[in-house]
Amino acid sequence: MRPPLPYPSTTPPRTLAADLPAVPPGTVVRLQGWVHRRRELATVTFLVLRDRTGLAQVVVRGDDRRVPPEETTVAVTGTVTANPQGPGGVEVTASGAAELVIEPLTDAAETPPVELWRPAPTASLPTLLDHAAVAWRHPVRKAYWEVAAASLRGFRATLDAAGFTEVCTPKLVGSATESGADVFAVDYFGRPAYLAQSPQFYKQQMVGVFERVYEVGPVFRAEPHDTVRHLAEYRSLDVELGFVRDHRDVLAVLRDVLAGMADAVRGSDAAARLGVRVPEVPEQLPVLHFSRALELVGAPADEPDLAPEHERALGEWALAEHGSDFVAVEGYPLAKRPFYTHPEPGSGRWSNSFDLLFRGLELVTGGQRLHRHGDYVAAIRARGEDPASYDSYLAAFRHGMPPHGGFAIGLERWVARLVEAANVREVTPFPRDLHRLTP
Amino acid sequence: MRPPLPYPSTTPPRTLAADLPAVPPGTVVRLQGWVHRRRELATVTFLVLRDRTGLAQVVVRGDDRRVPPEETTVAVTGTVTANPQGPGGVEVTASGAAELVIEPLTDAAETPPVELWRPAPTASLPTLLDHAAVAWRHPVRKAYWEVAAASLRGFRATLDAAGFTEVCTPKLVGSATESGADVFAVDYFGRPAYLAQSPQFYKQQMVGVFERVYEVGPVFRAEPHDTVRHLAEYRSLDVELGFVRDHRDVLAVLRDVLAGMADAVRGSDAAARLGVRVPEVPEQLPVLHFSRALELVGAPADEPDLAPEHERALGEWALAEHGSDFVAVEGYPLAKRPFYTHPEPGSGRWSNSFDLLFRGLELVTGGQRLHRHGDYVAAIRARGEDPASYDSYLAAFRHGMPPHGGFAIGLERWVARLVEAANVREVTPFPRDLHRLTP
Repeated sequence: MRPPLPYPSTTPPRTLAADLPAVPPGTVVRLQGWVHRRRELATVTFLVLRDRTGLAQVVVRGDDRRVPPEETTVAVTGTVTANPQGPGGVEVTASGAAELVIEPLTDAAETPPVELWRPAPTASLPTLLDHAAVAWRHPVRKAYWEVAAASLRGFRATLDAAGFTEVCTPKLVGSATESGADVFAVDYFGRPAYLAQSPQFYKQQMVGVFERVYEVGPVFRAEPHDTVRHLAEYRSLDVELGFVRDHRDVLAVLRDVLAGMADAVRGSDAAARLGVRVPEVPEQLPVLHFSRALELVGAPADEPDLAPEHERALGEWALAEHGSDFVAVEGYPLAKRPFYTHPEPGSGRWSNSFDLLFRGLELVTGGQRLHRHGDYVAAIRARGEDPASYDSYLAAFRHGMPPHGGFAIGLERWVARLVEAANVREVTPFPRDLHRLTP
Repeated sequence: MRPPLPYPSTTPPRTLAADLPAVPPGTVVRLQGWVHRRRELATVTFLVLRDRTGLAQVVVRGDDRRVPPEETTVAVTGTVTANPQGPGGVEVTASGAAELVIEPLTDAAETPPVELWRPAPTASLPTLLDHAAVAWRHPVRKAYWEVAAASLRGFRATLDAAGFTEVCTPKLVGSATESGADVFAVDYFGRPAYLAQSPQFYKQQMVGVFERVYEVGPVFRAEPHDTVRHLAEYRSLDVELGFVRDHRDVLAVLRDVLAGMADAVRGSDAAARLGVRVPEVPEQLPVLHFSRALELVGAPADEPDLAPEHERALGEWALAEHGSDFVAVEGYPLAKRPFYTHPEPGSGRWSNSFDLLFRGLELVTGGQRLHRHGDYVAAIRARGEDPASYDSYLAAFRHGMPPHGGFAIGLERWVARLVEAANVREVTPFPRDLHRLTP
């Protein structure tokens, strides 16, 4: 048996760019990263090196000032030297103690299709998307996704602390989740299957096991939308909880989840670098009834849904009236919500469901669900469908379920709104839509 | 605007079963949960109530001792009373201060298809799977999944602390990830698409952005296997990292990840309840070269892979020789590994890849990948394929990638091995295989 190599792995140990300002001047360090930018002046060449933590300035002097082209990966060994003009007040240079060594780790990189060293990504959206693997290296775009990753940490941390259990539910399903339309068909060993449009049915069944569950996973919508806010595959942050009184208890958990996500983003380097305006989540989310929301935006009382311009107006209202970036609209017409939606007590028209708008954009859909088996059978029949085709889902309700509800947050919409991206595709690593299946 | 309801939600506040032993006797509490078991004796009826934290005993006396049938959800209001025979030394009874009130939250539940109150689930595997929504309520099965959830927490916590970024990569892809076989085809707006067999290509591209990435997500294999360890959809715990010397640096990270997962499981209530033998992960994983592994198990030197019985024998060897539940086998024949596999330096035959066996079962596959564009072109051509069909993947390598590698852990296999389940389906919430697409 060969003895394993020691860990950590590099000799001398690697220094990260972000740690460089804390290293005493005169120390010999080894950096690793990408040639972010090289600038050849008359007597000196600057190499700006990029690693996962940031940028470091390397100063090359002497006769041979060759630096590999941008994006080549390199290891640089040199001496930490104070320079107020360098990032963090330091740069790496040759010294009496050690010469400067630039060691390419691969062949010279080809010129990237987008200029990664510019302060902002200047390429068009199609170019950024066509060349995603390289375009994501831009520090601004990289920070966009770091905001997403921080949000996921905040989401899970909040729910873990509140007694929720993470679940993993199947994405290959035997029938369309909520309706026959807008679903992707799969050839499943010669039989038809579908990609789950949401984990809705499964997360409800798991409430019967764990009471409080969450899942972060892909959902698939074969919607022929071609808008700045729809994707054919996106990340849904799903939550479902039992033993609620009604959807207001669900909203209270949503409030805590959003606060946890905002806190995690607020604490991230990426938010500081981007200057993200992280929202304060009010202790109580402002809530409007759907009928009142229609009045406020001057829409006819029989409108079945809120249009994007209504959502924008309600966002402005919430900010003006409540100083809140968020507003929940509850009571959506029952006829426009899925069959499992719980009605508003005493009303045949309204439901215990809600949408949450964040800065005037629908970010979350949720509500209380039916929990009695008989109510499901009646609701499915009322839609002209056969309860038998929902047999395995309905089994949970035959055998005892608590009053429950939940919600789903669209990750890409949340991040786009935070970083003020006009199109969700800007913050989605490899977006999928009507026209795009690659890269 | 209706004022939101206060949170938390129940009045009087709900008490969880696990918290009951700490409540002073004489306190009136409100429990919520499922009727786990009812036992009618001559003068008293016991109601064992189950909630997400455990079981509580409720004692019903008097003329009307009706208790709803098993699995009905109920709220119980009564008085905490010491009783050494009750779970945790307490039970809930009527008292002078308050009568006992049992309030059903739904209609009476139908008799469940599996007896959930028995100490162990006695139903056959097909019955458990056919009735998954209800069968998962059994406390032993529930604990199985809690081990999985704890493992996910440990996985992420270890990697978050080590500077990794969580990524979300697409599951709908334009071409088969690693080979044309064993891939599910999707009708994508009238065009062919496929379900990703792994996030391999994308996680590598993201190393170019974040250096160190991980993803927990579904992977899809249209393999016509019908074994106890294969699924058509499973959860893959994927890791990839840059600036490694070779696969041994990857193994060192794998070691830390496994230790983090084992620690999280060790700290969980579920592991204690199940009596899980949580492995000690050695500081250095024992590593065997593939050629040596063949010798050890007495297999011919030209075997291209390890058979399940070889894996079992190597597991026994690791335990006997190193007291380790884990053994890594490195150097697998290059010809049997995917084209992106890095060769063992100086060898045309062996590779810098590994499998990790856990208690004699393959749990992890990983290794060092190629990182030079030219090496990819040569490797793809050597397999008789056209590099042009890998264009967007290869772009990352044209524009500078570091030496890197990674691994993928199968969540279901890990949990099955931990809880000593003979079949991965026992620990998978809604398994998908050649024969099963429901529930």
